[in-house]
Amino acid sequence: MNFEYDNDNIFAKILRGEIPCIKVFEDEHTLAFMDIMPQKPGHTLVIPKESATTIYDLSDEACLSCMKTVKIVGKAIEKAMQSEGSTIFQLNGVFAGQSVPHFHFHVFPGPPVDLKDHAVELEDVEKLKLIANKIVACI
Amino acid sequence: MNFEYDNDNIFAKILRGEIPCIKVFEDEHTLAFMDIMPQKPGHTLVIPKESATTIYDLSDEACLSCMKTVKIVGKAIEKAMQSEGSTIFQLNGVFAGQSVPHFHFHVFPGPPVDLKDHAVELEDVEKLKLIANKIVACI
Repeated sequence: MNFEYDNDNIFAKILRGEIPCIKVFEDEHTLAFMDIMPQKPGHTLVIPKESATTIYDLSDEACLSCMKTVKIVGKAIEKAMQSEGSTIFQLNGVFAGQSVPHFHFHVFPGPPVDLKDHAVELEDVEKLKLIANKIVACI
Repeated sequence: MNFEYDNDNIFAKILRGEIPCIKVFEDEHTLAFMDIMPQKPGHTLVIPKESATTIYDLSDEACLSCMKTVKIVGKAIEKAMQSEGSTIFQLNGVFAGQSVPHFHFHVFPGPPVDLKDHAVELEDVEKLKLIANKIVACI
């Protein structure tokens, strides 16, 4: 299901600077920041600046920009979290568990096991900032 | 961890036509086919024809080609499996659970819940062909 893009979603507000995020990377077309309800330590989100809800709404140009940023951030997460691998996943539609209606890649170190439930528990901001600093240092 | 590309991996053999696959889509740069050990019905793999182990080894051009095919195949999977959403995930490195050392996106209908373990149980080929036919009809 594609739903109409909602300009008041939390990621749109982050992109407009109306609410803060713990940023690890930004370029002309993308932004990467810590998930504040991480499923495991190092859980980072990569979003396009383009307004799109699902991958099926996203332009090819924005797809490529996101993938480039996923590569940069994912490699840095592996190094920062001392993990010999990484997982990337992406949910499309409310039924699939997409909690924010702005396209986003989830990136985290290691395998998709021992994950906390998605979007449930808020992490301590200072802890997230420490991890973000480690990731930034590896970019 | 990046490991050397192994030309004898099962996806390289599929790309060379040395072993069969249940194909749903192919273009100049990518191939999509049914996972023979599906974690849920409709589980499909999208791979580049370029030889690359992880996302960190994959060229930007191949990244974009894969994303374009994921869009085509993912939308068709949603329609064919009558699901109002879809999940995309991708594992990098043995430690993260990557079972075949050739880059691949996993695409399946709905949320990443109630999944069978990865790469454990072989599905009946005729069942997979029926699902593949449904997906192909929606492309």
